[in-house]
Formats: sequence, structure tokens, C-alpha cells
Amino acid sequence: MRIVVLTGGIGGARFLLGVRAYAREVGAEVTAVVNVGDDLLLHGLKVCPDLDSVLYTLGGGADPERGWGRAGETWTVKNELAAYGAEPSWFGLGDKDVATHLVRTQMINAGYPLSQVTEALAARWQPGVRLLPATDDRLETHAVVTDEQGRRAIHFQEWWVRYRADVPTDRFVFVGADAAKPAPGVVEALAAADVVLIAPSNPVVSIAPVLAVPGLRDAVVGGPAPVIGVSPIIGGAPVRGMADRCLAVLGVECSAAGVGGLYGARPAGGLLDGWLVAPEDEGTVVPDVTVRAAPLRMTDEAATAAMVRAALELM
Amino acid sequence: MRIVVLTGGIGGARFLLGVRAYAREVGAEVTAVVNVGDDLLLHGLKVCPDLDSVLYTLGGGADPERGWGRAGETWTVKNELAAYGAEPSWFGLGDKDVATHLVRTQMINAGYPLSQVTEALAARWQPGVRLLPATDDRLETHAVVTDEQGRRAIHFQEWWVRYRADVPTDRFVFVGADAAKPAPGVVEALAAADVVLIAPSNPVVSIAPVLAVPGLRDAVVGGPAPVIGVSPIIGGAPVRGMADRCLAVLGVECSAAGVGGLYGARPAGGLLDGWLVAPEDEGTVVPDVTVRAAPLRMTDEAATAAMVRAALELM
Repeated sequence: MRIVVLTGGIGGARFLLGVRAYAREVGAEVTAVVNVGDDLLLHGLKVCPDLDSVLYTLGGGADPERGWGRAGETWTVKNELAAYGAEPSWFGLGDKDVATHLVRTQMINAGYPLSQVTEALAARWQPGVRLLPATDDRLETHAVVTDEQGRRAIHFQEWWVRYRADVPTDRFVFVGADAAKPAPGVVEALAAADVVLIAPSNPVVSIAPVLAVPGLRDAVVGGPAPVIGVSPIIGGAPVRGMADRCLAVLGVECSAAGVGGLYGARPAGGLLDGWLVAPEDEGTVVPDVTVRAAPLRMTDEAATAAMVRAALELM
Repeated sequence: MRIVVLTGGIGGARFLLGVRAYAREVGAEVTAVVNVGDDLLLHGLKVCPDLDSVLYTLGGGADPERGWGRAGETWTVKNELAAYGAEPSWFGLGDKDVATHLVRTQMINAGYPLSQVTEALAARWQPGVRLLPATDDRLETHAVVTDEQGRRAIHFQEWWVRYRADVPTDRFVFVGADAAKPAPGVVEALAAADVVLIAPSNPVVSIAPVLAVPGLRDAVVGGPAPVIGVSPIIGGAPVRGMADRCLAVLGVECSAAGVGGLYGARPAGGLLDGWLVAPEDEGTVVPDVTVRAAPLRMTDEAATAAMVRAALELM
């Protein structure tokens, strides 16, 4: 059995823990196609928050409480950069994290594509799943905001981390998406998949930028495998993060039904064959999509694996 | 009074503490022309050990015991780079130090010359002397060695840090020196100097690469100011470091007389008008050079300022 997961963010990384656990149980192969829209250059370093969250989480190096970054992280480099007055100061690069970015940046500058760099980093973390960036090309999520500086596009990380999503926002744009190509292996993995799972990630800024890569959405929608989504919204609120604020920008209701409707039914040109919602959202209707309810709190690996099993029962 | 100091290494940085103390006392201006031959790229970072030693030492941020790097340094980034198997592993980049290199590297990559980058870093450290790299161009000291891998040129830092200078060595070459130009301000500072001091730095790998920049040596030798050197050798041994091994490569005796002779007398086309040696080396003769003895142990700032005063009495 071959499982492809479209994923991004911390929720996506935790979901993959359950997918891996399930896959080990049944002997399945897992390929994760990971959002790169959050990636940015900081102090000359190429930072890939979503890929790193997966590497650190599946590799046992993530901070379980903070949710992002490394366990036992220290902040010497960040404090020193601040002492130099180096900008931006709103993004916290931990010392352990900096080493990852140094290795990645050096490989990128030497001409290696992000997919090969990710493979090299995975040699240390041994995530146990195949990890592919959605694209090797530049694709950055920007938010178009209006504040005292006027109307302007800012990087998603600035919107998220610096402004805590608390600034009037028109829309999100995926800079570079038009010219991006799926990373090597992505289309092939989708063509060979037995099932495609959409992780309970932020639909607007984690899943949408993955699907914004030309050819990638078609490979999902037109592929042979059923597509099962897992709702990131439970009882009208995001499990974590600020999906509510992102959905509001799109005018989409923050609910399992709202996100299901945003993804849409595959027969109608949308994504989904199945939609797994929480027991709190039992009775959710997404036209032409099979909806089922199961506990969606990723409290531990076993609970998350049970979610995956429930999702796959929608096949 | 305008003092120009040719300098490099940790001994040179400590010497500058004394020059600054003296200059404050008499109201003199100090320009330090600093060796860049030790500079190297490590993990994509532009590292300038000698410039940083001066910044950290004069800025009160140097580790007083280890002699190099920052006080209270931590090694998280280094350990993480090692966990990735990133090479080289023989050079210890501290976490605090990494921030300096990130700021510098980003400015260099943005097109700023090293002299402007150094000025920007000095805005934090306020060294109290004007700090100029000998050149903004690439000039790297390499050692030509012969070992089980054959005859090859390795970067000076590899020779020094990795091999502890303990490998059969033919000679040193200053890669890029032919095409290098003195950094902006260097020639002007020498032309306006009342005195040029040669710090008690390693003559072979700290002072020689400064003088290897075309035009720089001429600006010293042909300039208006007397040139006074301070011996880095006391009683036949280097005060610190491995000048003895470097001198051996050149076939020069490790003594105050040996180094004085290597620099040579200005009237004979060499560098020196005066040569300050330690009391242990009283009686040292360098033909056509005025030699004087004074205590040369840089035990504290006052002792070092007294050395400077003694050197200037040779004017």
C-alpha cells in the first residue's frame, strides 16, 4: 500500500507521526509532500519551517511543548544577532536550528535542489517516510495587508509571527507559483498512490500553496487514488494555529463543513472523496463527499494512528 | 599623533589594547591594519579570525583564558553541524561567533567590501581604534605541505588548527596577493602616520601577508614615518602560538635577532628603523636597526601600554 500525504505546519508533522505508525503496522510506504510556502531567507539562511517540523518531529528532535523547533533549544545566536541590530528580529532562530539552516544554505548555494537537500538532512533524522518538498522552485506565501504603511504584500511568516495574523488582510498570494514545477518524484508518487491523505493542516496557507504548484493539483484530482481529507477544525475552532484568521480572509466559515466545502468534492472538480471530521462535527455535510466522524485530537501517536485508520476506512 | 599598527593574531589584538591605552593617554589616533590571510569560508560563513580577535578583544567580548573567540561561548551550532556530518569539523565555530559571521556574510553577499563590513561590526564593539583589513580582496595564506596525501597546499587554518603545524611544510603562499589592493584608507593612513608599529604578531603568517598586498609594503617602507617593530620572540621562544614552527619553514632562527633580521633594516630595503626586544634578549643586534630592550610580557593593559611607550622611544 502506498500512501501520499499532502501536509504542512506543525499539525501536519504530528499527523505524519500517526501515518508512520499506521504504515509500520500494515507495511505501507509513505510519501509526504510538504508545503514550502513558509520558506524564507533569514540572515542569509534558507529556512524551511514545514520541512524542518517534519524532520524534527519524525526524527525525535522536536520540542514537544512549544510545538516548533528543537527540543532543548538555546538562543545565543538570536541574542547576538539582536546585539548587532540585525533584522529581522521577530523570527526566533534557535542555535540548533541554525545548524540545519547552515547545512541547507550551503547545499542550496552549491546548486543542489531543495529536494536533494531535504534528502541529505533526512539522512540524519531518519524520518521513516519519504519527504518531498512540493516544489524545488521558489514559492512563497505572502499576505496582502493594509496597515499604517499602506497596502502591501508581506511574507507569510511576517504576517504570522510578527503580526500574529492581527492586521487587516485582503488575500494570500503564492509568489512564484506560476513558474513552479512539482519536485522530482511528486507527480510519480501521486500516480502510484493507493490513497492520498490531506493532513489536518491549515487549508489556506499549508495545503493551498502545495496545490498551487501547476500540475500538482491535477495529479491529485486526476490521479487513480481516492483523496481523503482530515479536518483541521474541531467544533468550529482550529486545533492549533490560526486557521480561523486565514479562513476569515477567504470568507470561509471556520468549521469542518466550511473547510470541506473549500476543498470541494472531486466529482465536482474539487479535491475530496472522503472527509473525516471530529465527533463534535458529526452530521457535517459536504455535497458529494463521504463524511465520517472519528476522534481527531492528536494526543499521542496511537490516537493519531487511529485517526489515520479511520480516514482510510473512507476509501 | 597618528599611530598605524600592522597586526594579526591574538598577540596583535592584545598589543592593540596597550596601543589604545597609550593613545588615550597622549591623545593619539590609532589605525590598525589587520591581516586577512587567516580568513576562510566555513559552512558558507565568511570567518575573519584576526579582525574578530581585535573586535572582541578591544570591545571587551574576548575570552581572556582561551585567547580566541568570545567569553562565555557555547558550542551548540558546532555540535549540531557535527551531527549532520558537516565538514570541516576541526574548526570550532562558537554560537556567539556564528552571529558575527552571519552578519558579515550577509553583508559580503550583498556586495559590501570587507572594510565596510568591519566598520559595521565595529559599530557594536566600539574598539576605540580605526580598524582596516589589509585588503578587501581575497588573500589567503596557504601552507604547501607534503604528507601521505602527497604535496599539496592547504589553508593556513587547516595547517594551524587541524594539523597543529605538525606536518612537513615547504613554504607559505599568499593566494590572491598578486591581484590584491590595499583596502581604502590603508595607504592614506600610512602616508599620514607619525609612526608605524609592527605588533609582536607572527612575522610569517600575520605580518607577512599584510605586507604581501602590492603597494602596502612600499607605503610602509617609502612612507614618512619611522617603523618600529616589537619582537614576538622572547628568549628564543614565541610568547604564544607557533611562530617557531613558521620560522622553521623559512629557515629563520627563532630569536629576536632572527625575526629582526627577517624584517631587515629600512636603509637596506627592509622594514625596520627600530626593534624592541625583551630584557632576555638584550644585546640583540640587527644591522642598521636601533635595538632596545624592555619588558615584553603583555600581562595587563598597563604593562602593554608601557611596551608601546618603550617602542615609541625608539622613534
